[in-house]
Amino acid sequence: METEITLRRLKTIEGHLRGVIRMVEEDAYCIDVIRQIQAVDAALSKVSAQILENHLNSCVIDAINGNDPKERKKVLKEITEVFEMSSKV
Amino acid sequence: METEITLRRLKTIEGHLRGVIRMVEEDAYCIDVIRQIQAVDAALSKVSAQILENHLNSCVIDAINGNDPKERKKVLKEITEVFEMSSKV
Amino acid sequence: METEITLRRLKTIEGHLRGVIRMVEEDAYCIDVIRQIQAVDAALSKVSAQILENHLNSCVIDAINGNDPKERKKVLKEITEVFEMSSKV
Amino acid sequence: METEITLRRLKTIEGHLRGVIRMVEEDAYCIDVIRQIQAVDAALSKVSAQILENHLNSCVIDAINGNDPKERKKVLKEITEVFEMSSKV
Repeated sequence: METEITLRRLKTIEGHLRGVIRMVEEDAYCIDVIRQIQAVDAALSKVSAQILENHLNSCVIDAINGNDPKERKKVLKEITEVFEMSSKV
Repeated sequence: METEITLRRLKTIEGHLRGVIRMVEEDAYCIDVIRQIQAVDAALSKVSAQILENHLNSCVIDAINGNDPKERKKVLKEITEVFEMSSKV
Repeated sequence: METEITLRRLKTIEGHLRGVIRMVEEDAYCIDVIRQIQAVDAALSKVSAQILENHLNSCVIDAINGNDPKERKKVLKEITEVFEMSSKV
Repeated sequence: METEITLRRLKTIEGHLRGVIRMVEEDAYCIDVIRQIQAVDAALSKVSAQILENHLNSCVIDAINGNDPKERKKVLKEITEVFEMSSKV
């Protein structure tokens, strides 16, 4: 179900990106193109947040409740990594 | 020529995004999907910077050399706006 | 201990920011000021990531292992929120 | 005058950052600290945009109207660079 929502959003973003490509092909005004790219960026960040939320409510809970301390450590480390990365893109 | 480069890059990013959609369809690990989305984001930011560079070297120079103070003001304001937006996405 | 590291880093950043203020007072070149502000931004993002890591390894583990489903939900929701926010600043 | 505004804003942000340091000293809730750091980040980005605006309306106009093509190129390149950087921090 969650996957359905994620897929639908990603496909909408793909359509948006194709629109940007068309704008460039039709020689649209640079600033308008940049603004549309920024809108695509923002939409992608939202999808990422939604995927992270699903991940926290499934894999992360399982790992923390599980018996494998290594797995738990890995799962928590990954969250910090994508968080750190997210402020760079 | 610049437009060619921009188009090629945007199409590569479109392919990358389709790869992300496939990953979700094939139920890839959430964190791997997020990382790929962040890579798409980073690539889009690079294209934006390249488009801005072309814009500065054409329209902006024309506007500043031109005789229309309103147009000049508008063009400079737009740059500040996309810059401000860029730190938000 | 973790708190010590966080504090030390934040105080270093405070010193860096005071340096930026001095640059503006001494009429430094705009672009150099912007670059230093971006460096302060990057350093702050790193501290955020470190604080999040500590949080995941303490409060979040406690909440997930605990018996309060409401608290667990709140704690996981907060992580998604700061993640979403982090791609906007 | 512009410098006055920039200075005032930077000093406000310095006060905000000192508040964050106090929060950490008083062992505030991690997520609240992260949110305050993100607010400081957002405020810094706004100051950067304001500094860039002043820069565009002074140095950049001068460079473009001036007779030094090297200087003009340098000034335009710098804008692309801080723009590219701004989507990474």
